Order: sequence, then structure tokens, then C-alpha cells
Amino acid sequence: MEALRVTYRLDVPAADAAARAEAIALEQTVEVPRVVVRDRFIEEQILGRVASLEFDDEGAALATIDYPVAGTAGGDPAQLLGVIFGMTSLQSDAECIDVELPPPLLDALRGPRFGIEGLRKLLRVERRALTCTAIKPLGHSPKALASLLADFARAGIDVVKDDQGLGDHAFCPFSERVPACLRAAAEVADATGHHALYVPNLMGTPSAVFEQLRIARDCGARAVMASPMLLGLPTFFELVERASLPVLAHPSFGGARRFAPDLLFGSLLRLYGADAVIFVGYAGRFGTPRATCRSLVDRLRRPWGPLLPALPVPGGGVQLENVPELLAFYGPDTMLLVGGSLQIEEGAVFERSRAFVRSVREASRT
Amino acid sequence: MEALRVTYRLDVPAADAAARAEAIALEQTVEVPRVVVRDRFIEEQILGRVASLEFDDEGAALATIDYPVAGTAGGDPAQLLGVIFGMTSLQSDAECIDVELPPPLLDALRGPRFGIEGLRKLLRVERRALTCTAIKPLGHSPKALASLLADFARAGIDVVKDDQGLGDHAFCPFSERVPACLRAAAEVADATGHHALYVPNLMGTPSAVFEQLRIARDCGARAVMASPMLLGLPTFFELVERASLPVLAHPSFGGARRFAPDLLFGSLLRLYGADAVIFVGYAGRFGTPRATCRSLVDRLRRPWGPLLPALPVPGGGVQLENVPELLAFYGPDTMLLVGGSLQIEEGAVFERSRAFVRSVREASRT
Repeated sequence: MEALRVTYRLDVPAADAAARAEAIALEQTVEVPRVVVRDRFIEEQILGRVASLEFDDEGAALATIDYPVAGTAGGDPAQLLGVIFGMTSLQSDAECIDVELPPPLLDALRGPRFGIEGLRKLLRVERRALTCTAIKPLGHSPKALASLLADFARAGIDVVKDDQGLGDHAFCPFSERVPACLRAAAEVADATGHHALYVPNLMGTPSAVFEQLRIARDCGARAVMASPMLLGLPTFFELVERASLPVLAHPSFGGARRFAPDLLFGSLLRLYGADAVIFVGYAGRFGTPRATCRSLVDRLRRPWGPLLPALPVPGGGVQLENVPELLAFYGPDTMLLVGGSLQIEEGAVFERSRAFVRSVREASRT
Repeated sequence: MEALRVTYRLDVPAADAAARAEAIALEQTVEVPRVVVRDRFIEEQILGRVASLEFDDEGAALATIDYPVAGTAGGDPAQLLGVIFGMTSLQSDAECIDVELPPPLLDALRGPRFGIEGLRKLLRVERRALTCTAIKPLGHSPKALASLLADFARAGIDVVKDDQGLGDHAFCPFSERVPACLRAAAEVADATGHHALYVPNLMGTPSAVFEQLRIARDCGARAVMASPMLLGLPTFFELVERASLPVLAHPSFGGARRFAPDLLFGSLLRLYGADAVIFVGYAGRFGTPRATCRSLVDRLRRPWGPLLPALPVPGGGVQLENVPELLAFYGPDTMLLVGGSLQIEEGAVFERSRAFVRSVREASRT
């Protein structure tokens, strides 16, 4: 059978695990007591089935449940998410730790449209690790941000994104910030030959986001960013469909930590179409365990049906001095995101950015 | 100062709490080290400020932070959510437990457009508690669901909603289900004088959701439902703006439990415009503590600037025999949602529904 297979880690006594798994299979599909399911079509094509029940090293039960594809409404992105973890997310004893999707669902969701290769082509960088930073903080004028971007671009940074906090503020409207920053990047490109990719942040209701997308494209933006968990994954999915540009995913509001972080940022964001996924890595103020980071980046890059690999973008407190160690861990199909650390010395943005660029190029060479 | 005031419960040693609170004030606004903030406008109009630090009975630190309104981009619903809990949601030591919004933000978000009073008017029920159930399970044809709805309507149930799992499935398309169910409700109304309110569930990408809204309105639907956390709160907000109909909120995918549940379901869903909020209460399989339920319903109904009160809809495993106790706890400005329990005896849907209706009417009288 081609089923959607979802695994949950259950915090229940071992003796209760089998019953708990059966309850989840009901909860996530028919959401009625088992006796109410009297229809054969519903039994065969809707109802979840416990496929296996195992115990991990810590004694937690791992329940794997198969959900017939029919219930996902042909892979509607909202419906799919509801089947994976809708009601069970509300029960404190279950964490969703893995999904396996059969070919029809992978074909319906499609994943990244550009992926690692598309981003490399856009950046004209074939093999080495990539560099990324953000214009920030929120509060600067478009002019000040464009000037900061120019420093980063002159230093040779590959990708300069908006801070995820840059919305459509009165003191820094989207429609002024984006052309100013694109112009600054183009001017640096004319002068130096290095064309940094500026990535505007889209933020708001769906109407606002799609209007910002239109403005960004009209101004010549070549990629965009959004925060999928803040906008909602189905909205992010529609953005990917509409964009015809590479889309970066920002982790803001991704604290639904009862999705295992490697599943959420590694698999689900790729499934929903992020070409590059920013996540908070082990080396920084968010303290994601190394093993989680390893699994997360493997999920972003490994072969997965027809889905393109997505580019891992570790951030969240990366310091310049950690670059060699980080690239040894993450490998070259990685874009390192360094933020505030580049601005920590007043008047030295260009020099620190240049040091960042050099250290990534050197570490990639070994 | 008119600030957005947010409270976090911190799981850190008492000696570290003050520094941790300062770090959150930075993280949620400028997201750079403090030394990078050199601009007076940013210091005064963007940067968060720790307003107070207290300790609760269990010794956990409660940090209250004031965020200047300017950072929220005039109350853009996505931006606001990012300021409240964007990056901090990714740090495992913080739970967001309360928000206070100044008048400009309340005016920007607006909250419920119909609220308790609008729903009572629509239902023509002045004071007693209201009754609600769902047509389900997923897998039935529109005809079968309409016939189930007719049983519920004939029994006198006030509101019959779609199960949140009913999307736009090939075996039960939205465009067939909704007119079939509306017709069934109208036929029962003609025969009995009781016009049950049928509430279709909207599900999918923003385009799909807004198209479903159009179909529902064209067919004469008088209210709609959506799952805000599944669609994304900013998408839900735009739905409320477009609907011109009462909107019910379903808790599916609301397992971002590092929002305190009473804050998320009680305050945030009301702020984002839900006229009625379905939540999983203490009497059922989700085990929400009573104190949380009490706080949640108080937040939905208490005076809050210009925001209309929203109708609490406890569900998640309500049994017929608990109705009197539940109404004693929740009071009459409540809509009880009974689901699978009404279908547990084959062929007795009408009788069990009738018993539900009677028990609510009787309990409301006392």
C-alpha cells in the first residue's frame, strides 16, 4: 500500500503504548471512537493503521502509523499537515519525529523548485561553501540598510538577506527598501564584478506577502525569503508555487518543538518547497544538539524521490572563529549565515565581512 | 509609553534570569548584540525593554518585556507574532505566557467581528448555553454527511460544523458537500422551524481557502470554520477580514505548547478575530488542566479594549453525562461541542442528539 507513514515518540508506560498508538491512528483520521467506523471505504481508505511499535534506547515507544493517501485530499498542503500532526499535537505525550511520503504525495508537494544546484547557478559558485549575512537591525532606513549591504557585497559575501524582522514598516517601507538594496548590490557588482544576491523578506497576510513578491520581482529580485511557521506552511507552499524564484526559509516562530527539529526544518520545509533552509545550529545561542544538526542537514540534502536537495543555512550565533570547524562538520553544500558578529566593531563591517569570506573560501579548499 | 507587553516564563537559574530577560529583549527586536545598537531611534522605538522580573511559586522567573509598537509595523499580524515569540520560540528555556496590547494594536487587529452576541443573534438563542456537533468521520459522501446533519438538526442542535478533517477530497468535494449540507439544514428548518447553523471547514493554501469562502457564501453559508495554527495566524486573520461572516477557530495543529494554551487559544485567537474558539477542555482525552480552561474562557469573554467577546467552545471528548457539570463550570456563554459520542450507538443519532440538546437546555435553566 502507498501510505503516508508517520512516526511518533510516545511518553507513556510501555504497557499502554499499543493502545495509545491505536488511539492516534483514530485521532488523526476519523476522530471518532472505533465503533463508529462502520463503512468499508472509511476502514480501508481513511483510517490510520499502526504499522509498527518499537522502543528506543531510553524506553520511549516509537509508534509508526500508516495513513492512506486518500485522506490527505491529493496532498493538499494544509490537509497533509493535519493528518501528520493536527490533533495529536495537542496531546502532550506525543512528539512527531518522522514522516515517509509515498510518490504521489512527493509529486503533489514537489519540494524545492531550485534547490542547491539552482542557488549555486544563480550565485555562480560551483563547489565551495557559501556565505550569508543579514542587513539589520530593524529600525534603520532603507538608505542605511542599502549602505550596509554595499559593505557586505564589496567584501564578497554571496547572499545578503533581510533580517526576518524587516517587514513593511513606516520608517522602512518594503517598496523603498527592496529597490534601494537591489540598486546597491548592482552598483557594487558594476564596480567589483561580484554580484551579491540580495534576498528580501516577505511578511504579512497572504495578500501582503503576494503583493510584496510582485514588488520584489518587478524590482528585479532574484530570490526571496519568508518564515514558513509564522506565515503558516500552506501559505509558504503557495508562495513557492507563485514565486518562480528561489525561496529561503527562516526559522522564526518554529518553536513547535514537539515536531522533532530535524523533521520540521530538515524534511517538512524541504517538502513544502524551501530552496534553502535557515536553522539554528549547534554553535550558537540556540544550542541545537550536534546529532540533531547532522540529521537535519542529511534530511535536506539526501536523495528523496523527485525532490531537489535544499541548501542548509546554519545560523543563530555563528562566530567568525568557528568557521573552519563548522565547515568541517557541515561540508561544502552549506551556506554559513553570520549575523550581528559582522557589525560588532563599529566602522569595521567591511573588514570583518572580508575575514568571513576568506575564512569560508579557505576552509572549503581543504 | 504604549508598548506591547509580553511575559515569558523562563526555565533558568534565578541568578541568570535578568541576563536571560535582557537577551530576549534583544533577540525579539534587533537580534544583534547590544553594542551594535548605536542609533537613538532604534534604542527608543525598536529595542525591547525588560519591564519587570518576578518569580512564581515554583521559582520560575517571569520576565515581562515591553516592545515599542513601531516594531510591529502598525500591527501587521505576521510581524506582531514575530515580535511576540518569533526567535525565542526556538529557545527551549522560554514559554510565552501572556501579552498585553496597547490600544493602537487592538484597533489594528480588531478581534472578532461578530463575537458571542453576533452568534447568538444568528442562532436566535438569547441566554442558554449552545449546542454543537460535527459531521464526521472523513470518508463519507456529501449525501451521507447531509443526512447525518439532518438528524442533528432535527434533534435541535444549534451548530453543526464540518469535522476539521473534511477538506476538498475527491470522494467528498467541498463544492458538493457544502450545498448538500446547507440544503439539508434548510429542509429541516422548513419542516420543524429549527434552523441549525451548518459551518463549513475551510482548508488549504490561501487561494484554496478564499475560493472555498466564495463558494460557501454563494451557497448561503452563514458562518465558516478554519484551523488558525494549521493555516497560519496571518492567513486566518485575512480570512476573518474577508469573510463578513462569523468565523470559528479549530485547535488543530495548535500543539505549539510553548505558548501557554490559555494565551494561545484564549487571547491570541480572539485577537486574530475568531468569533468562536474550539479548544480541548478538561473533560476529555486531552486533559487540559481545569485552571487552564478557566483562564482560557475568561480571556475569551472578559472586556478587552474594543474587542468583542468570543464564544468558548469546549470539545475534545465531551460525554453526554458530563453536560451539567461542564455548564456549571463554563457558564451559559458557552457552546458545548459533542462529537463522536453522538454516533456511538448505531441508528440512534437522533435520540442521542436529542438527549444532548435537552440536557444543555435543562442545565442552562438552573
